[in-house]
Amino acid sequence: MAKRAVVLVSGGMDSAVVLAWMKREGFDCIALSFDYGQRHRVELECARRVVAKCGVIEHLVTKIDLRTIGASALTADIAVPKDRVDVISRQEIPVTYVPARNTLFLSYALALAESRGASDIALGVNAIDYSGYPDCRPEFLAAFSRMANLATRAGVEATASGGCAFHFHAPLVALSKCEIVKLGAELGVDFAMTISCYDPTSDGRPCTRCDACHLRALGFAEAQQVDAGQSAATR
Amino acid sequence: MAKRAVVLVSGGMDSAVVLAWMKREGFDCIALSFDYGQRHRVELECARRVVAKCGVIEHLVTKIDLRTIGASALTADIAVPKDRVDVISRQEIPVTYVPARNTLFLSYALALAESRGASDIALGVNAIDYSGYPDCRPEFLAAFSRMANLATRAGVEATASGGCAFHFHAPLVALSKCEIVKLGAELGVDFAMTISCYDPTSDGRPCTRCDACHLRALGFAEAQQVDAGQSAATR
Repeated sequence: MAKRAVVLVSGGMDSAVVLAWMKREGFDCIALSFDYGQRHRVELECARRVVAKCGVIEHLVTKIDLRTIGASALTADIAVPKDRVDVISRQEIPVTYVPARNTLFLSYALALAESRGASDIALGVNAIDYSGYPDCRPEFLAAFSRMANLATRAGVEATASGGCAFHFHAPLVALSKCEIVKLGAELGVDFAMTISCYDPTSDGRPCTRCDACHLRALGFAEAQQVDAGQSAATR
Repeated sequence: MAKRAVVLVSGGMDSAVVLAWMKREGFDCIALSFDYGQRHRVELECARRVVAKCGVIEHLVTKIDLRTIGASALTADIAVPKDRVDVISRQEIPVTYVPARNTLFLSYALALAESRGASDIALGVNAIDYSGYPDCRPEFLAAFSRMANLATRAGVEATASGGCAFHFHAPLVALSKCEIVKLGAELGVDFAMTISCYDPTSDGRPCTRCDACHLRALGFAEAQQVDAGQSAATR
């Protein structure tokens, strides 16, 4: 029987590549998405399409309320920055940072992995093209991994026999957006199904002006590929 | 201005003692409770009363769905063990273990602390009287603390100036249940407002037979105090 993995799938291009990558690695995948009060909820529709096309053994869309926590342009009444063409060179944590978001997402992934007997957890974080998010860095993932193996029944049991219960995969962490586009193409990812926008229009189209839209456009331009997604994301 | 702390308040006796302890330490407290699909939801009513009596600057009751994750007697159709009078001496993780529960709870506490400018997080875990839960051990808390300071904007900023953004308090971690009863009495905790039961009756009274009821009864007996709570929990 194939090993099981929980894969975080947002509906954006990065997690679609990670899901395809984990499938190629031979894992039976359980997709996990979050309805967390984000203003870009259209990405959940994209997540459902990505998952349906790729094939998983389960897709759990979990509702969590980060609006009551707020303090981010993605979950509160704070404007999403636009037209920051210098986004890659900026050395700051943007207002789109959501407090402890990846910690929360990975905690759910850990709970789901333990309950379903999955040994692996994968996510599409990236620390190269500028994001500025502290919870996208390899040192965060290493610390989370160590904690996870102390936090759980499976971790305690594995440690007792000299092993490790949970392995974390972030295959895009050291890739540029251009390299992610190329890897996705090689894996057959249908980018038309994905959206990468913090502030979509009311009919679900990307704004084309936020950091996420800029980074995506730069990646496709550098890879010299046409982005079949974004404008087609709601079709 | 007093320093702010997020305190996890379940409605049980331990977290009521922790809240009183943090107040005595001089913190302005933000209480955080979880409606996570637990079969003992009556504890949320107790949490509201404990918080109202003690006084906090905010009480957030967050709904999270752990029933879809399941795999625990507290969140799935698995029987809660009863009449285990040898509960303290047992060397096993019980079926009441909820996968990654404290990891999830602390992740929310971390998000809330960062958004509200709180530097401290407190919870009522206890590793002495038998609980068998891996996420109640000091080594888990130390690993979570390290991860938290890497995961967040506040952590990155504090680290840059040689500091630490978040401090975790588990004042009961090395106390026996008897010592917790005595500490609570000293702090003026009204135990009548709390309930410690995994499987309350339909009218919200403790079953008196689960591990949580047994441990509480043993603690009060050893402290030679009458438990004004439990039977009065739903009044």
